[in-house]
Amino acid sequence: MRRQQLISEIFRKRTYLCIGLDTDPEKLPEHLRDLEDPVFEFNKQIIDATRDLCVAYKPNTAFYEALGARGWETLEKTARYIGSEHLRIADAKRGDIGNTSERYAQAFFRTMEYDAVTVAPYMGEDSVKPFLIGEGKWVILLAHTSNPGSADFQLFGTAERKLFEEVIVRSQKWASADQLMFVVGATRADRIREIRQLAPEHFFLVPGVGAQGGSLEEVSRQGMNKDCGLLVNSSRSIIYASGGKDFAEAARVEAQKLQREMDQYLSLL
Amino acid sequence: MRRQQLISEIFRKRTYLCIGLDTDPEKLPEHLRDLEDPVFEFNKQIIDATRDLCVAYKPNTAFYEALGARGWETLEKTARYIGSEHLRIADAKRGDIGNTSERYAQAFFRTMEYDAVTVAPYMGEDSVKPFLIGEGKWVILLAHTSNPGSADFQLFGTAERKLFEEVIVRSQKWASADQLMFVVGATRADRIREIRQLAPEHFFLVPGVGAQGGSLEEVSRQGMNKDCGLLVNSSRSIIYASGGKDFAEAARVEAQKLQREMDQYLSLL
Repeated sequence: MRRQQLISEIFRKRTYLCIGLDTDPEKLPEHLRDLEDPVFEFNKQIIDATRDLCVAYKPNTAFYEALGARGWETLEKTARYIGSEHLRIADAKRGDIGNTSERYAQAFFRTMEYDAVTVAPYMGEDSVKPFLIGEGKWVILLAHTSNPGSADFQLFGTAERKLFEEVIVRSQKWASADQLMFVVGATRADRIREIRQLAPEHFFLVPGVGAQGGSLEEVSRQGMNKDCGLLVNSSRSIIYASGGKDFAEAARVEAQKLQREMDQYLSLL
Repeated sequence: MRRQQLISEIFRKRTYLCIGLDTDPEKLPEHLRDLEDPVFEFNKQIIDATRDLCVAYKPNTAFYEALGARGWETLEKTARYIGSEHLRIADAKRGDIGNTSERYAQAFFRTMEYDAVTVAPYMGEDSVKPFLIGEGKWVILLAHTSNPGSADFQLFGTAERKLFEEVIVRSQKWASADQLMFVVGATRADRIREIRQLAPEHFFLVPGVGAQGGSLEEVSRQGMNKDCGLLVNSSRSIIYASGGKDFAEAARVEAQKLQREMDQYLSLL
């Protein structure tokens, strides 16, 4: 999905919600557990219930890999089921030497139908560039994450320049805002404002609203640009809103709350 | 595999070679291509031809993921085929927030039978710790890699302390040398000496000898400790030594050259 299509979808649907499909077999409603592929059935129903409320879905690859080859099949089927009207993000945190990153790009962009992959920056330019295969396919580079350990290395450096800032500044030489986004955690809204100054055009994928405690209002106030510039992710608080037969309707209710709030913030642009 | 077993195997077999199974379907010998699982057949023959010459095998997960669910099955079968007398390293470069790294640990240590996973440090302590599930299972943390892009962020910092040094120093608070190794590229032997001073006890997994230009002699001279402390990886120069029917014998010849050289360096300890 190209940048212009993403922006159009955001303003047409009045939402910048990304729904994280961190689907945990142990948290599935009872009535799905005996099906042939309960994880896929769960994803399908979540997707059907929320298509009009979000612009992106983000399966977290770890949850699928833990199931072995079968999980990998589910990951593939899920991308196909989502279809091309949503941005399909493989939250995979990959990154390796050039010839290896090429294979990861092949896995997510060719073998499967994802539009974007989250990438870890530690190995530098030649580990990121193989994912930049053309417009419509995206690298979402880890910049400042939402977890406690983000302070360990991302804040390493000097008062003038920390590692996450170096990542944001340097990586903009590798790709434009048409192919590169950044992961920016919601848990520190002051950082989002700072990072917006360093990357005025780029989209940010923002995890950490909901279960991890970030505020949608603060994130939106500090992080939006004229094109919206945000994809705010919520996983657990939507997909596990109910553990019963009504899980998909309950997910819709939660997604709708976020969408309505987002509608208001979009009106301020 | 526990540390003591690894050290015993090194001194018994007179080798600290790790063979990288970066198996590329396009580089397989013609006569294997029509088999049901040509990648597995190739791995099997390479493993059979080299078991006595190495202490570890390291499939690079990207090459398997690029094949979809089928590749993931091959990755699983390969671990099983290697068996418990070699250290089985999943070169996966994973790392995510705690609940997600737990799933990756499950994928590689439980669903599959790997002993070690390469992990990227960018997200910090809570992204690494879920892989530390007990002795005999290893985190191999990226410290200073062998690729050109390693300079982009790994050398970020000040003259006194660069990022890769911070990673090595800080991560030693999370795990002992019984569960933690570091990836240290062979392409700069002077760095290996420096890193050995920062981590005197830990094993280093050293890529970059062979195709990438690092010298086994230099790496061994600068990096060994009293327990050897090195696993030197070679992938392409062994597994693609011949593209014909004799690929496994040719791989054995190349592996044996390295093993004989390693035997000499072990004698110096």
